[in-house]
Amino acid sequence: MSASQYEACRVDYKDLHRFIEQALAAAGADQASREAVAKALVTASLMGTDSHGLRLLPHYLNALQGGRIKGSPTPSIKQRLAGTAVLDADDGFGHLAGYRAIDHAVSMAREVGIGAVAVGNSSHFGAAGCYALAAAEQGMLGMAFCNSDPFVLLHGSQRAFHGTNPIAFAAPVAGEDPYLLDMATSSVPMNRVQQYAAIGRPLPADIAATSDGSTTTDARQVSALLPVGGAGFGFKGAGLGGMVEVLSSTLANMVHGFRLLPMGGPDMSTPRGVGHFFLVMDPGAFEERSAFERRLAEYLKDLREMTPVEGQRVLAPGDREWQTRDERKQTGIPLDHAQRDQYRQIAERFALTALTEH
Amino acid sequence: MSASQYEACRVDYKDLHRFIEQALAAAGADQASREAVAKALVTASLMGTDSHGLRLLPHYLNALQGGRIKGSPTPSIKQRLAGTAVLDADDGFGHLAGYRAIDHAVSMAREVGIGAVAVGNSSHFGAAGCYALAAAEQGMLGMAFCNSDPFVLLHGSQRAFHGTNPIAFAAPVAGEDPYLLDMATSSVPMNRVQQYAAIGRPLPADIAATSDGSTTTDARQVSALLPVGGAGFGFKGAGLGGMVEVLSSTLANMVHGFRLLPMGGPDMSTPRGVGHFFLVMDPGAFEERSAFERRLAEYLKDLREMTPVEGQRVLAPGDREWQTRDERKQTGIPLDHAQRDQYRQIAERFALTALTEH
Repeated sequence: MSASQYEACRVDYKDLHRFIEQALAAAGADQASREAVAKALVTASLMGTDSHGLRLLPHYLNALQGGRIKGSPTPSIKQRLAGTAVLDADDGFGHLAGYRAIDHAVSMAREVGIGAVAVGNSSHFGAAGCYALAAAEQGMLGMAFCNSDPFVLLHGSQRAFHGTNPIAFAAPVAGEDPYLLDMATSSVPMNRVQQYAAIGRPLPADIAATSDGSTTTDARQVSALLPVGGAGFGFKGAGLGGMVEVLSSTLANMVHGFRLLPMGGPDMSTPRGVGHFFLVMDPGAFEERSAFERRLAEYLKDLREMTPVEGQRVLAPGDREWQTRDERKQTGIPLDHAQRDQYRQIAERFALTALTEH
Repeated sequence: MSASQYEACRVDYKDLHRFIEQALAAAGADQASREAVAKALVTASLMGTDSHGLRLLPHYLNALQGGRIKGSPTPSIKQRLAGTAVLDADDGFGHLAGYRAIDHAVSMAREVGIGAVAVGNSSHFGAAGCYALAAAEQGMLGMAFCNSDPFVLLHGSQRAFHGTNPIAFAAPVAGEDPYLLDMATSSVPMNRVQQYAAIGRPLPADIAATSDGSTTTDARQVSALLPVGGAGFGFKGAGLGGMVEVLSSTLANMVHGFRLLPMGGPDMSTPRGVGHFFLVMDPGAFEERSAFERRLAEYLKDLREMTPVEGQRVLAPGDREWQTRDERKQTGIPLDHAQRDQYRQIAERFALTALTEH
């Protein structure tokens, strides 16, 4: 099940950005919203995070047209103290809220060394890594967290409770692309299970469960994902998912993920009240920035020189993503057959210049 | 291999605290150091975190008498901005540095809502959860991280690179004990493997590897631990271990864990330069504190009401620990045969009143 087996065509990332913006504009998104969504989706697709890239546009258009997401929100920031703030996303796109929150956290970190922003009344924000990355691109350490509706079992529970609640962490690396970790607290995302179910391929062991909570490798029997660590050590993944939930919902006074309306619908008119949490630190606010840069470079050098198991490579978080980005900037971003057809339909529906398919 | 099979006796936690302080005093630790170490070890032993409790005293006495750890350090805090600081532990006990750093982070969080302290020139600090907990006991969200010498493989590497690099997260819960997550980023600690090797018990699958990086269940063949997620999804555990490493060493200008002298010796005279990182946030610095308290209570109620898989219980992080603490305050803290003998020898060596064994 390599990507190429499913690839229908490739598109240039700038053309994709243009198309996403135009489609969102046609569906009622204001300029700030459509720029933020296009930036996040193209960033994810370039990095190879295909589960959180261009695949999501049809869903976002439905959420926008259904009224779940406001196309012209008025996000507002409330700040009590110098290092902490709450951003009310006003039911707009999570991507707009995410980039605004990170920028505000960066500005707080410039003043007091660190800044945290809890976001409420938001919606799906795509890949968490986009926002951590946005901080690193401004020379800061960035972290991003988000809750979601339930897909993942607690340790020992029969039913899903947490979302795939991601943790993203990025650090600026002098003279290189940033260090970038972006991980769900389940082993795989739910849409990977759906892909496997569609072709009858067995799942890896210990990542998903049936409706009574017992593990299965039959993707068609899956009711929920196991937290990372599986049946034996999933209390660790579940604990991390819980940490993400507490940070994402309680600080912004939002309901927790188990109580959220499902992202997949059928209700596409009621705002969901998703919560995010962002943390930014200035590495130069501890010791000298040059010391941080040197220590991080030493660490990455040692890491990349470790002897791999035969047939594998030892990579730092982000190495694979930046390599994919460089390749895809050259060769284009792949669309599978379903995505190609959806993008053609979107072009027709909104009378847009279609993507140039290679 | 239940605890009771190995239990030689039990001791009262106050008597244990008294004994640890006296032993450390006899070996040259000043009052602040010995209070911090005793508090951390007794806290861990009471909560059932036996790998990081009273078991560690003989090691700490060796490190103190060997000169690796200073008994009368002069820790100093350097603060550049209102929300960030570096604590130089002056090669003293990590427990002293940890409690000082958390208290300083709490004081910054009172001023600007959030505070982070990177700690350098430190040593082993016991259980990370102790310091997150100390923040929660002051009404704050607390996080604690620490590097260590290598025990854990990178994803796809032959040799250990990261330590078991823990993540601890605690949140204050109105009217209850705190929410408390304290987890290594490997599936099990190395001393669990050593316990299994001693009795020839097979390990769970997918948690440890031989010297060529291939997984094994034979504890006697283990050269390194796999990161949580195992052979298939260990890139997640390794990524988290990396995040902990970056936070713990680069911000305090310390070498990363792979370059640290081994905790286990043989060199007990050279300071190791361990790094920690602590983050504290005031939940009342975002929305109203009462909203945070209500949202967290709602979340915990829903979590604890989830239907368990047959024969299991659904617990929030900390539930098991507080239950164990309550039991052990009544019935005492268990020592195995080796620990009982070690503690008797310590009493003899320093001419202390021995622990009262039940």
